[in-house]
Amino acid sequence: MKWLPGAILAILMIGNVQAETIIATGDLGLVVERASGSLLLVDQSEKATISRITGLGDLSHASLVYSPDQRYAYVFGRDGGLTKVDLVEKSIANRVVQAGNSIGGAISDDGTLVAVSNYEPGGVRIFDADTLELVADIPTESKTIGLVDAPGRRFVFTLWDEGETWIADMSSGTPLVKKISGMGDNPYDALITGDGRLYITGLFGEDGLTALDLWEDDPEPIRVLPEYGRGQKELPVYKMPHLEGWARAGREFVLPAVGHHQVLWIDETSLEETGRTDTYGQPVFAMARPDGRQVWVNFAHPLNDTIQVIDTLSKKVVHEFKPGPAILHMEFTPRGHEVWVSVRDAGKVMIYDTRTFEKRGEIDAESPSGIFFTSRAHRMGL
Amino acid sequence: MKWLPGAILAILMIGNVQAETIIATGDLGLVVERASGSLLLVDQSEKATISRITGLGDLSHASLVYSPDQRYAYVFGRDGGLTKVDLVEKSIANRVVQAGNSIGGAISDDGTLVAVSNYEPGGVRIFDADTLELVADIPTESKTIGLVDAPGRRFVFTLWDEGETWIADMSSGTPLVKKISGMGDNPYDALITGDGRLYITGLFGEDGLTALDLWEDDPEPIRVLPEYGRGQKELPVYKMPHLEGWARAGREFVLPAVGHHQVLWIDETSLEETGRTDTYGQPVFAMARPDGRQVWVNFAHPLNDTIQVIDTLSKKVVHEFKPGPAILHMEFTPRGHEVWVSVRDAGKVMIYDTRTFEKRGEIDAESPSGIFFTSRAHRMGL
Repeated sequence: MKWLPGAILAILMIGNVQAETIIATGDLGLVVERASGSLLLVDQSEKATISRITGLGDLSHASLVYSPDQRYAYVFGRDGGLTKVDLVEKSIANRVVQAGNSIGGAISDDGTLVAVSNYEPGGVRIFDADTLELVADIPTESKTIGLVDAPGRRFVFTLWDEGETWIADMSSGTPLVKKISGMGDNPYDALITGDGRLYITGLFGEDGLTALDLWEDDPEPIRVLPEYGRGQKELPVYKMPHLEGWARAGREFVLPAVGHHQVLWIDETSLEETGRTDTYGQPVFAMARPDGRQVWVNFAHPLNDTIQVIDTLSKKVVHEFKPGPAILHMEFTPRGHEVWVSVRDAGKVMIYDTRTFEKRGEIDAESPSGIFFTSRAHRMGL
Repeated sequence: MKWLPGAILAILMIGNVQAETIIATGDLGLVVERASGSLLLVDQSEKATISRITGLGDLSHASLVYSPDQRYAYVFGRDGGLTKVDLVEKSIANRVVQAGNSIGGAISDDGTLVAVSNYEPGGVRIFDADTLELVADIPTESKTIGLVDAPGRRFVFTLWDEGETWIADMSSGTPLVKKISGMGDNPYDALITGDGRLYITGLFGEDGLTALDLWEDDPEPIRVLPEYGRGQKELPVYKMPHLEGWARAGREFVLPAVGHHQVLWIDETSLEETGRTDTYGQPVFAMARPDGRQVWVNFAHPLNDTIQVIDTLSKKVVHEFKPGPAILHMEFTPRGHEVWVSVRDAGKVMIYDTRTFEKRGEIDAESPSGIFFTSRAHRMGL
């Protein structure tokens, strides 16, 4: 084809190349690079990096959610930045700094609204997912924590100072807020179960946890493990465990104990304790593989170089290994055959087979923390 | 750049092109048009048709699964055809006629293997998901039914004639088959629960159902509702209900009764009956909204113009309406805010809000039957 001018040849080859290089969004993901304020766009099946997206501000404790079509990610930065990232264009589509200090966010079940939880000023702000224009402002005069989406275009969040949970129903366009008091002293984090039914808060100021059954018209706080001490006398709490790590494993929930080298097992119906498993260190995340058959646990500093895998039926540790220094997060592939692990101080994301525990690959990343696959777009509370 | 030779320019542009061709596939879906052997590619958020894909052969009782990246669908036709459809190119990527008469298929949890269940000749054939080349042939000398994927690169299926369930472990590349006998007389369909743990078969030749706990090393058949009659004396069975309609609703499973105008509720742990709800007709699908709070039911001919919605907590019918003649299938959006309904003899797919029950849109389709959203790529057993 040497008789063709270069430009024409190039166009012809684009036609051919396109057929080989189209990527669908079902198996993509974003890795938070906290030190550099950037995101790595990764391909789960190829175990490869596609692109780096920069300019996201302070990404310590950053999290993100996806639009239903898996084209956009909404990134919640610690600095109050809400950034809309376009996975197709591999660039920032929009960015607003909507508060001074924020922690986490959620997207409504219909994908039209994005909510952000703020410390400074305290409250929740709700934005149009298309334009990032402010739709509703719900001030709380308290730090807000544990913001999640619930079915029916609702957002649920909790006030650290007052120990109140608020349910904001956005189905009419303006927020209808139901307030539930008596959640306990200083709730520090919360989660919603995968079916959107139970909202559970962890307490910093007293023992135990508090649950709400969102299927009730007027949910009442349910005390969970009220005698379970936070362990202050036994161990310093290096890091409060993340409740989002809670998961349904078989017919139980598993959660990291606070201040103990243990994970706790709770019956999903009675919410009573069914067992404890001693672990290598103080758990940070206790994450169930999507089929619930295993729970993977990482630990607080200085024992944060190790992962333990617990078998759900026997509640025994069946595997332990050391991927490297400063393991910050784990994300399973949607059907659980592999897991991606952020090893911050190795500058790597490591990929393991969850059955053989063999390493299947690794990706270079700058101080990686959270890993978020696009399959989260289709789950509640993620 | 005109001084560059064409080949070098083309290579440079390949680098750019790669960055231009990510396609968002998260909210797409396919609607089976059974009479015309075609598929409608639809956009869930836009409530619109993108394209029609033709040439798929006999699509009566057709089903399909998606690749993990949500780019490809594997369509299982009644005529033994296995067709790989490219959602990005909107065309057939590959097609093999792999048996004379087949019913259903599954994709392995790692997305590398596609299995098809055949009546004629009876057995399961497993294909490379990339090339559709035959990887393994598992003849059974029986019609095979209820083929599903299970965690760990396994496929589970059941033999109609022998009443045996086979578990084929493909993790080593060649099938290791475990056979479990005593499943009962003439199992006609089966399902696997969303966590991949329980495999449940419906029986045509005797009362009750049979379950297997796939977490056990050597699962034993568990009889479920052994006294629950199939109802032959009471009503003719116009159509055997689909077990794939079973779903976890709260802490129960709900399933269509056979030969009765009822749905049955079963405790998810004890597998004992917890209630029955009288319905308008003989249920075909009883499908739980993704949050489990509602169950939508359609009915066999001649009462197949109606849908009833049951509240999970009260087990009472809370809504009833008539979308039109011959309602064949329903598919919820992944987080359940809307439902798409195939109304075959109206030539329409109707879209409803699941809370207000308002109609939100409709799409023209030729004799629509199954509706499959791409979010199924990330679920087990779908």
